[in-house]
Order: sequence, then structure tokens, then C-alpha cells
Amino acid sequence: GQPLLLIAGPCVLQSMELSMQIADVLVRINQRDDVNVVFKASFDKANRTSLAAKRGPGIDEGLRMLEEVGQQSGLPTTTDVHLPDQAAVVGQVCDLIQIPAFLARQTDLLVAAAMTGKPLNVKKGQFMSPEDMQYVVEKVHGTVPENCSSGVMLCERGTFFGYGRLVNDMQSIPLMRALGVPVVFDATHSVQRPGGLGGATGGNREMVEPLARAAVAMGTDALFFETHPQPELSPSDGANMIPLEAFESTVDRLLALRKVVAQMDASAG
Amino acid sequence: GQPLLLIAGPCVLQSMELSMQIADVLVRINQRDDVNVVFKASFDKANRTSLAAKRGPGIDEGLRMLEEVGQQSGLPTTTDVHLPDQAAVVGQVCDLIQIPAFLARQTDLLVAAAMTGKPLNVKKGQFMSPEDMQYVVEKVHGTVPENCSSGVMLCERGTFFGYGRLVNDMQSIPLMRALGVPVVFDATHSVQRPGGLGGATGGNREMVEPLARAAVAMGTDALFFETHPQPELSPSDGANMIPLEAFESTVDRLLALRKVVAQMDASAG
Amino acid sequence: GQPLLLIAGPCVLQSMELSMQIADVLVRINQRDDVNVVFKASFDKANRTSLAAKRGPGIDEGLRMLEEVGQQSGLPTTTDVHLPDQAAVVGQVCDLIQIPAFLARQTDLLVAAAMTGKPLNVKKGQFMSPEDMQYVVEKVHGTVPENCSSGVMLCERGTFFGYGRLVNDMQSIPLMRALGVPVVFDATHSVQRPGGLGGATGGNREMVEPLARAAVAMGTDALFFETHPQPELSPSDGANMIPLEAFESTVDRLLALRKVVAQMDASAG
Amino acid sequence: GQPLLLIAGPCVLQSMELSMQIADVLVRINQRDDVNVVFKASFDKANRTSLAAKRGPGIDEGLRMLEEVGQQSGLPTTTDVHLPDQAAVVGQVCDLIQIPAFLARQTDLLVAAAMTGKPLNVKKGQFMSPEDMQYVVEKVHGTVPENCSSGVMLCERGTFFGYGRLVNDMQSIPLMRALGVPVVFDATHSVQRPGGLGGATGGNREMVEPLARAAVAMGTDALFFETHPQPELSPSDGANMIPLEAFESTVDRLLALRKVVAQMDASAG
Repeated sequence: GQPLLLIAGPCVLQSMELSMQIADVLVRINQRDDVNVVFKASFDKANRTSLAAKRGPGIDEGLRMLEEVGQQSGLPTTTDVHLPDQAAVVGQVCDLIQIPAFLARQTDLLVAAAMTGKPLNVKKGQFMSPEDMQYVVEKVHGTVPENCSSGVMLCERGTFFGYGRLVNDMQSIPLMRALGVPVVFDATHSVQRPGGLGGATGGNREMVEPLARAAVAMGTDALFFETHPQPELSPSDGANMIPLEAFESTVDRLLALRKVVAQMDASAG
Repeated sequence: GQPLLLIAGPCVLQSMELSMQIADVLVRINQRDDVNVVFKASFDKANRTSLAAKRGPGIDEGLRMLEEVGQQSGLPTTTDVHLPDQAAVVGQVCDLIQIPAFLARQTDLLVAAAMTGKPLNVKKGQFMSPEDMQYVVEKVHGTVPENCSSGVMLCERGTFFGYGRLVNDMQSIPLMRALGVPVVFDATHSVQRPGGLGGATGGNREMVEPLARAAVAMGTDALFFETHPQPELSPSDGANMIPLEAFESTVDRLLALRKVVAQMDASAG
Repeated sequence: GQPLLLIAGPCVLQSMELSMQIADVLVRINQRDDVNVVFKASFDKANRTSLAAKRGPGIDEGLRMLEEVGQQSGLPTTTDVHLPDQAAVVGQVCDLIQIPAFLARQTDLLVAAAMTGKPLNVKKGQFMSPEDMQYVVEKVHGTVPENCSSGVMLCERGTFFGYGRLVNDMQSIPLMRALGVPVVFDATHSVQRPGGLGGATGGNREMVEPLARAAVAMGTDALFFETHPQPELSPSDGANMIPLEAFESTVDRLLALRKVVAQMDASAG
Repeated sequence: GQPLLLIAGPCVLQSMELSMQIADVLVRINQRDDVNVVFKASFDKANRTSLAAKRGPGIDEGLRMLEEVGQQSGLPTTTDVHLPDQAAVVGQVCDLIQIPAFLARQTDLLVAAAMTGKPLNVKKGQFMSPEDMQYVVEKVHGTVPENCSSGVMLCERGTFFGYGRLVNDMQSIPLMRALGVPVVFDATHSVQRPGGLGGATGGNREMVEPLARAAVAMGTDALFFETHPQPELSPSDGANMIPLEAFESTVDRLLALRKVVAQMDASAG
């Protein structure tokens, strides 16, 4: 079968030292045949719950750091864009452009990102059905420059399920794959509890690996995790992150599971 | 009691003729003592379901039209912004700035809009609880320039309730009022059926007035409606709009209801 | 217009003294022309969260008390049934039979209750759409004995909205009225927070009157409230009840509102 | 690891011939070491959407058939009860008693079933959180006769997710296992679309195996499927059933997956 695409990193860029500490683990994982790793970090957290929350180094410093991580590690990189005019410059540095879930219906942002010719990873809005993502795909496909092989993948990261809670409708994985595009499962943000911490977003790390296993069993093409050597020190999403020291063994287990699922699919004919 | 704030208009700007046809009705309504009317129209529909959908005249032409409507009618005007760098120029023309529901957590957009010194109408995200809007209020209040009396109001426009359907949690009206800000009820968008028309958003006009009545009964400070002389010709939301010829009598009924509710509150002491 | 049907009482039967204390207030309200009052109390709370929770006096003692309340007060009475074989005996004492929301799809219970020839008040399941209640109506109408003028009314009491929370979709009132039957709004149970108290169901009394106002504005035919002279001493639902001393003035306000709504409807033609 | 518990059968009892045709396949599967099979069929569908829908042979004929299936096949059997007074007689024939999801909070039904001394399989109500099922467990544990080793298992079968749709919150599997009881995943009913067929409940068979795989990946102890040689001829749930000819290979794949998951858990230590 196809190698798993693994998108991982520290949520938000903090220091080159931290980034390379994480990238070193990812490089080691990337040596396997059954996985392709992309380093992900945000330069700006543009929709934090509160004004006082830390946001990141900004686009200039952030892209400089991402470029350096890419060069030092040899890994492709990705980050998320929030405004249409950020797309072109991000496209010059990164190999994959991520569109945040809240912004999945902003036409200009999708178009600007698609115009870079780089592939996109669009997160399904918490307020959208898997089937609604068809129109996102069409917006991108209707924009991508000619003679450009890039495309779009769609990401399940949880759907609104009453105030302060998300649910993963695991059917979204085959439903979005049926749109003809690869699907990413974002295990880290799926376990967010919006507003759960009063002025910040809570989470539940113990559910990350079980949900990732379920996503692999449902046929996801890619997984997205945040990891950090000291999750409790991360400026955001610390409650959902996999500790860096546990990351490689977690990935090992998920790749073992994926191998069996591929065999099952082959035998199911 | 306080006069009702009535925000109304044709959804998207089409022609000056259409705008003034609607504004004429609003001017007549505005002569009453118990209502203050604001003319609303969008210059750009930035998150249409599909790429092919019509979007509007754009910001330059749109603001020119809004300015002219304001001058000819004497009504204050409002429109929605989608990007931070649109805020300043919109603030020079309009009297109230609307933040779309999908963008209610985009910090830079809220800050740029608040920096104009004009009051904001922030729609509650379909993925947010009424209580979560506290952080939106704090983002605006933490930004508004000193010696500036403007503020923020919050708008109930429906919450995600399973794929393709919204629900109005009417408790959101008193819950958001308890944050110390006026609350708007957007009857038009509350009856949207996202994705309900295949590549467009459907709706259900018959529920608009009943829901507006319920919102008045729950104590809303403001109502928002879209109206059009020929709703079926509107580039968007036609299925939810009140026909212009029925608009004034609808408002009459709602104002009569509001008067009784004020009396009830006074007697409840 | 039609008088409002007001269903009210102490939730569960405790003592004759308590029942008559409440019934006395209801009798006074019932003297008005614009309201018809039915006394409601349960003889058994058959689905309490925990095994240890108090349940009530049981069917024999409970029906004896209901009969006596009816005779002493002159009010019609209603109670809820949980098993098909309870229907016949309840039908001999009560004037209206209530079907609990969790049991709204239990065919045998609906049929047994309909066979009594008494009208039914079926609560919409928290897991059902307003449109789904069409099949409930058909089950009853397909059963009611010939030459029997009784019928069915449907009750909105909140719909599942994420774990531990209900939402009132106020559109359910006109949608269920469109099925050709009267609609009841149960303001007391709509504000339950299932599981909210750990081993019991919580609530939020402040929302009871605002939601009842909204329901009147949406055209409800009937209202259902629980009331108690000391809500904090009620074996269940105390957090949602209207204190008895505030009950009559609450009803006064709602009847004033209903009068205006009827005038609005008449003028809307 | 523990063998998988596999609960399977034809939904509702039709004929001995059909039951034995299905039981023969189950007996063959039951010869494996890694699975224990229980034959399940209902004697009455007590909450069909419409009055006209077929319900089954009734309790007397149904229990006679279940007893005969058990004797001929050697398989343990299970069925669902709807009224407290059905429990004792069902407990004399069946090895496991199933409580329907709509009835998961009916205290008397749970108590009567627990009093039989047979283990219970209680379906989580579509309106309940996984954590709410703690009180169900306590109701059963507070009732089970002394010196009786039987217990309770809890079943995930989908949660209300907007009108006409269920979602599987896969987190419910580890959350209910954390209550100290085995968890069943009912793949067949999870893909129901309530009201989806107008007067009947629709479904989506293609999602059955993917969801079952996800449940195995999340650590479910048991799986529940309906199967039929000609699903389109089943009186109910045909749209969700696995065709009998595909059943054994489906189970084979799920057991292969479960084996790897057990190894992953062992290595995760």
C-alpha cells in the first residue's frame, strides 16, 4: 500500500532548538519505507480564545525558521495561513499549505493558497458535513494552475457536538475519500474541549492514540499530531499533545496497524 | 423601554435603484419612535458554498454605494468585513461593522474592526456557545481606543445542529445579554439549511417571523432581517428573505409584541 | 382565540396537603376565561438517574390521591404512564394521559393509552425530530376507539444537544402544529441538564419563563410547568420549578403575551 | 487476549429455517479460539416507526424458537426485553438479556432483568453520554442477586446528532470500559438513519465494517451485527445488515485486526 503521510510538529514555532529537537525524531521516523513525514508548525495562532494568549513569532520570523528546519532536517514543511496575502510567501517556503477549519469556506483564502501550486491540506470546518467539503475541493480544483500536479487533501479534526465538545464522525474519513482526495486525521485537535479551560481550549491526551488507531482502521491516508518534549510548556494545545519521548513508539504501533488494514483490504478484494 | 434596533437590507449590494427601493421602506419605518433602523448590505459574499456563486460589487464600488444610500436616505449603514485590512476603510463609511460568524474568533479581524472606533456587531459562530462570546467581547473591549464610546453587540444566528441544519438556542439571547452587551437576533440566517440546495444554502422563510417573535419575547435588543422586492431574484439567501411588500407589517407586529414584553418586564419588577 | 391549556402541578405526588396547596392556586387561575387548567402529578418517577432516587407513592396510592385532588378542586387531572397495563386504570381516574419522552416510540404503550378513549399528551423524544412525531400521531389515531372525540397533543420538552444539555428547537412548535394537533411546551423539563448534578439531573429555573414566553410567541396551544411551595424540597426537578408564590403572576404575564400574539395573528390575516 | 464476543443474528425471528441457516454460519465461526458467538434475534420490535410495521412472532412463539435454536446449534442466545414482566421468562431461555437503547433509563426494566441473574447487555441511549451509563451499571450492580457472577455490559449504538442522523462517538468505547464493564459495539444500528425512509428507519450498510474496524481499534470487547441471507427481505434494518454470505469473511478480517491491536497493547505496556 501507499506510505502513510505523517504531519507532525510542535503546534507553534518557539525556538530553533525546540524545532530541531522534534525534527530529529521525525527524521528518524522518516527513514522507514512506510511513512513520509512533513514537519508542521504555526507561525501565528490567529484565533486563540483570548486576546492575551501567545500567538507565535509572526510570518517573517516564522517562515525563516521553517526554511531552516527544512534545510537542516531535509524534511518537507507545512504551516497554516489565515489571510489570502500570506499564501504566496508561504508557498515559497513550505511544501504543503494548511487551511484552518474555521476558514474552510473563505473563498479568497482557498484560491490564493491554490494559486501557489503547492498542495493544500484543508481542515473540515467544525460546522460542515463531510459531503460539504466537495465544494471546497471544487474551489481548489477550479483554481489550481494548469500543468500543476498539486492537489488538495481534506482533514477530519472534529465536528461541533454541543457546546464545548467535538465529536469525530469517523464516517467522514471514507466519505471524504470518496470525493477522490486523500484524507488526513488530526488526532490532536479532535480531542480539544473548546472553552473547556475558561479562556482557553482544553483537551484530553489519552484519547489521541485510540482515535488515531480508529482513523487508521477507517482507512485514513494521513495522520496529524502535535508533539512536544514538554507538552505542559507549549503555548497552546499542551493538553492534547503526545510527549516527544512517546512519539516514535506511538507511530510504530499505528504503522503496524496500518499494515494489517492494508492486508485486510487486499483480502477483501 | 429602549427603541428596537432594526438592521435590514438586501443581503448583497446589487444596484442603487434596488438599494433605494428598500431604503425608502426603511426610512418610513424609522420615523417611529420605538425603532432605530440601520441599512445593511454586503459588498462581498466571501464564503459562498461554491466558486461559481455571485459575490457582489467588491469593496470600492460597494462602499461608494453604501455611502450614497446613507446620504440619500439619512439612514446609518452597516456591512460585513472579511479581512483586517478592510476594517479601516469600512469604518470611514459605515456606522456599524459586522463580523461574520465563521470569523468570530479571528483575533486580527476583531482588533482591526475595533480600532476603527465604530461599534461592532459580531455574529456568534455556529460552533460557539453563548458563553464563549465573552472572549470576543473581551478582545473588542481590550482594543477599543480610549475616549471612544463605541462598543460591541453580539448576534444569535443559529448553531450547528447536525449536518445541514442549524438550531436557535433561544437561551443564547439572555445568556449573551448577561455579558453586558446588546444582543441582535438574525432571523434570516437562522433558517438557513447549509448545503441544503446542493452547492448552495437553502432556507425556510415561513419560520422567519415566528422566530423573530420568539426572540422579541426572550428580550432581544435588535433584529436583523434581509428583505428584497423579489427574493427569488436575490443572488443569495432568497429562500430566507422577507418580501419587501410584507416587511413593514411584519415589523409592526414585532414592535407591538416588544411593547407588551417591556410592560411584562416592568410589572415583573 | 382559544383559551390556553395550562398543565401544572408538583412533579411527583407527595402528600394531599401539598397537592391541595398547589391545586388551590390553580383553581384561582382557572377562574379566568382565557385559560383551562389541568392538575398534573406523577405517581412514579420511573426513569430516575439513580436507583436510590425517590420515586413516588406508586400507582394505587397515587391514583387515589389524584382522584381526591380532582374531586376537592374540581380540576381535571393528568399523570404519566410507563407500562401498557397502567393505561386502563389511569384512564378511569385522569382526564389526560401523558406519555414520557423516552417512551414516545413504544407502540404498545401508545396503543394502550389511546384505547382508554382519553386524550393523550405525548412528549417528543429528546432523540426525535418534530416531523418524526407524525408517526406517533398516526399510531394514536389508528387506535382511538370509534365515536370517541379524544385525540392527541404533542409536547416539546427539549432535544439532545451534546452530552448533558438539551436545546429547544422552537421551530418544533409550528412544525408539530402543522401535523394537525395541539402543541404543549414543557418549560420545566426543557431546562434540565441531564447528568448535570452527578447522579441526578440539574436545571436552570431562570430560563423557564423566558422560554415559555418564546413558546407563546411561537403559537403554543398549551404550557406545562412544575411548581412547588418549596422547590428545594421537591424529590426531583426542584432546580427547574417555579416557586408556587410566583406562579400566578408568571401565568398572568404569559396570558397577556398570548392575547397580543392572537391579535397579531388576526391582523396578519 | 480475551476472545471477542460476537453477538449476531437476523434482527427479528422469522422462521426456524432462516434462524438455523444463520446459526449454522455462526456455529462454524464459533469453532475458532478467538471468538465466542451468541445468537441474537428479537421476538418483538416494540418501537417500530409506524403502527403498520411488522413486529415479530411475540414472546411465547419467539422464546420457543430461541430455545430450539439454542438446542440445535449449541450456541448461547440473547434477545431484548421491553417490559419488566418479560424479564423472568426470557431469563429462563436466554443466556444474555438485551435492554433497548430507548429504555436504558427505565429502572424497573433494568431491575427485573438483573433479578434473573443473567448478564445484561444495555444499549446506551441515543440521548445519553458514556459517563451517564455509570448510573445504569449501578442500577444493575445494586440489584444482581448475591452469589451470582453475572454482570452487565454496555453497548455503543450511536448518539443523536441532529434530526435523522446518529454519530458514533468512538471515545465512548474506552469511556464505558473505564466504568469497569465490557463494551459492545453495535455496528448495525449505528448506521441507522432514523426517519430516513419516511415511516421507517433507513441505513447504510457500507459503513458497517469500517465502523466495526474502528471499534476494534478502540478496544471494544464485543461486536454486534445483524445478518440475513437476503437483507432486502428482512422485516426491519435490512439496509444495515451484512449479507450472510459475506459474514464469515467480515468476521475473519475483524479478528485479524483485533489480534494486532492486542499485540500493540501488549507492546505499549
